[in-house]
Amino acid sequence: MNPLANEELILLSYSDLKDLLKRVLKNYNFRDHKAEILADVFTRSSLDGVYSHGVNRFSRFIDTVKMGFVKKDEEPTLNYTFGATEKWNGNGGPGILNALAMMNRSMEIASVSGIGCIGLSNTNHWMRGGTYGWQAAEAGFIGICFTNTKPNMIPWGGSESRLGNNPFVIGIPRKKGHVVMDLAISQYSFGKIQEYAMKEEKLPFPGGFDDNGNLTNDPFTIIRNEKSLPVGLWKGTAMSMMVDLLASILSGGDSSCKIGSRKEEYGLSQVFIAIHPHMISENEMERIIEEVIAYTHDVPGFHPEDKTYYPGEKTLLTRIRNKEHGIPVNKKIYEEILQL
Amino acid sequence: MNPLANEELILLSYSDLKDLLKRVLKNYNFRDHKAEILADVFTRSSLDGVYSHGVNRFSRFIDTVKMGFVKKDEEPTLNYTFGATEKWNGNGGPGILNALAMMNRSMEIASVSGIGCIGLSNTNHWMRGGTYGWQAAEAGFIGICFTNTKPNMIPWGGSESRLGNNPFVIGIPRKKGHVVMDLAISQYSFGKIQEYAMKEEKLPFPGGFDDNGNLTNDPFTIIRNEKSLPVGLWKGTAMSMMVDLLASILSGGDSSCKIGSRKEEYGLSQVFIAIHPHMISENEMERIIEEVIAYTHDVPGFHPEDKTYYPGEKTLLTRIRNKEHGIPVNKKIYEEILQL
Repeated sequence: MNPLANEELILLSYSDLKDLLKRVLKNYNFRDHKAEILADVFTRSSLDGVYSHGVNRFSRFIDTVKMGFVKKDEEPTLNYTFGATEKWNGNGGPGILNALAMMNRSMEIASVSGIGCIGLSNTNHWMRGGTYGWQAAEAGFIGICFTNTKPNMIPWGGSESRLGNNPFVIGIPRKKGHVVMDLAISQYSFGKIQEYAMKEEKLPFPGGFDDNGNLTNDPFTIIRNEKSLPVGLWKGTAMSMMVDLLASILSGGDSSCKIGSRKEEYGLSQVFIAIHPHMISENEMERIIEEVIAYTHDVPGFHPEDKTYYPGEKTLLTRIRNKEHGIPVNKKIYEEILQL
Repeated sequence: MNPLANEELILLSYSDLKDLLKRVLKNYNFRDHKAEILADVFTRSSLDGVYSHGVNRFSRFIDTVKMGFVKKDEEPTLNYTFGATEKWNGNGGPGILNALAMMNRSMEIASVSGIGCIGLSNTNHWMRGGTYGWQAAEAGFIGICFTNTKPNMIPWGGSESRLGNNPFVIGIPRKKGHVVMDLAISQYSFGKIQEYAMKEEKLPFPGGFDDNGNLTNDPFTIIRNEKSLPVGLWKGTAMSMMVDLLASILSGGDSSCKIGSRKEEYGLSQVFIAIHPHMISENEMERIIEEVIAYTHDVPGFHPEDKTYYPGEKTLLTRIRNKEHGIPVNKKIYEEILQL
């Protein structure tokens, strides 16, 4: 029995869920191969437990297509190239398809140059950032990518959201399960905060500010104000600014400031770096990774139930569970999708 | 009057302080040009307000040379090269000299390939990481570098230090003052915690764990236990592991696990990435940077005295102040150095 199963959830297999999403995408005139990829990515995100950017986000994605700022047939075009670096224009195409294409292209460059670095302007929300970390790791590359977002985080010393939570992703290939870090620079991603809101629970640690500048763990306040907490306060403030600057400079695209001036969140800037781990033998690489993981796993906790995880470990456990028992989908969300 | 000046501090000019340090280094048989560079970097770190890794750290650096695990005459050697990536062995040389050489080499690669990426094994503490971010920015490159360290941070879910605080540096060139982020992945760097300890003050926010697993803001407890707090708890845990993995894999060097098995901290692994911002015009780059900085500066605080800063801004203010009034040096530390 899937521990997530309850009367508000139904359990669907990967293929049933993917087929449903693909059918909807085709209703909205997505070409077959694009519908296939998009349905696969949304479904895999839920399969991996990232419900907020999987099925739960699907209707909103369709809305952005209907509103016209996600242009379903557009594809990225090359603007500039020099050595192992390239600058691309996303042309407002679907964020998932653009990002997959750019990580692929970055890996192509890395195959011949050791490293590839691509700046992508004018793209859309890539949904679950981890997708592109897993993509690189699956192909045997180290993948590093990041995106800016609309402002949703308060800079340290300020009282209004002027920073994106700018998700940052690193994927490292490993035989026993890739190591993939997928994190927003806020203490909690908005996806995670929304999950707490849906469960009507408080966050375990402060995750944002209330109107008076006090730290709060109330998810509704944080979502309403769009004032989330930079990870490590002043440190996350610096990290967010650097990610925004790198993404905007390397792509020649818009910063969070520009993105925040629009009614909807589009025209994002992203960076995709791939590194081929040719400088080290496969065995030596595995040895290092297992050493680092074993060292952190092999640590007593302060409490008997405490346990450490490597980045990507919980994802893999969730994937295995959801493959076996089915992917939990909120019934209301499922019914919404059936109406699309 | 320098606000830091008091009876425990003396104020020295850049050249007086540098000349003193150079003299000491020459007493320890450093060759002239290496003594010059090292004295300059230590002095500049104090000039910029990073006292913990400037003059305050100088005696300890000399100790590591005397103990023999910093080998004063060794230089990095190239192990492997492919495209825009290289793997070097630091041969146990002085961390500052190795790091400067590697950032330089990475910029050379970036000049022809757009990006350069170097893994450096078997090196020593690079002191102030920001040095190499400023170095890249001064030369007109984007610089990204990071190092692993001995374990000094608790992984989320554990009770013992199994992670390095693995400083991470990004430098971006800017006409009105470079944007440089230099941060350890702990909520506070040990340098900063030591500054609070020297002032016998509590940290403003929790910065580590006590023996019972409670968060603490007592600097002495954190230093004694070497149990500092990952920035953002579980997020910093993931970030530290990823930096350690990338540094060890790309250099083929030792991870924090191996480094922690030694009595002294040496044999570190580091990565130096330089990117030539050729994909964007200088004017457009300046425009983006000024936009991002103005947007975060132009924000009201929750309290009248609140103010936001861009990464590197306080450094520049301190540099200007210390250039005008002199570099504050703790008298005890100054007298120690005179004895060397």
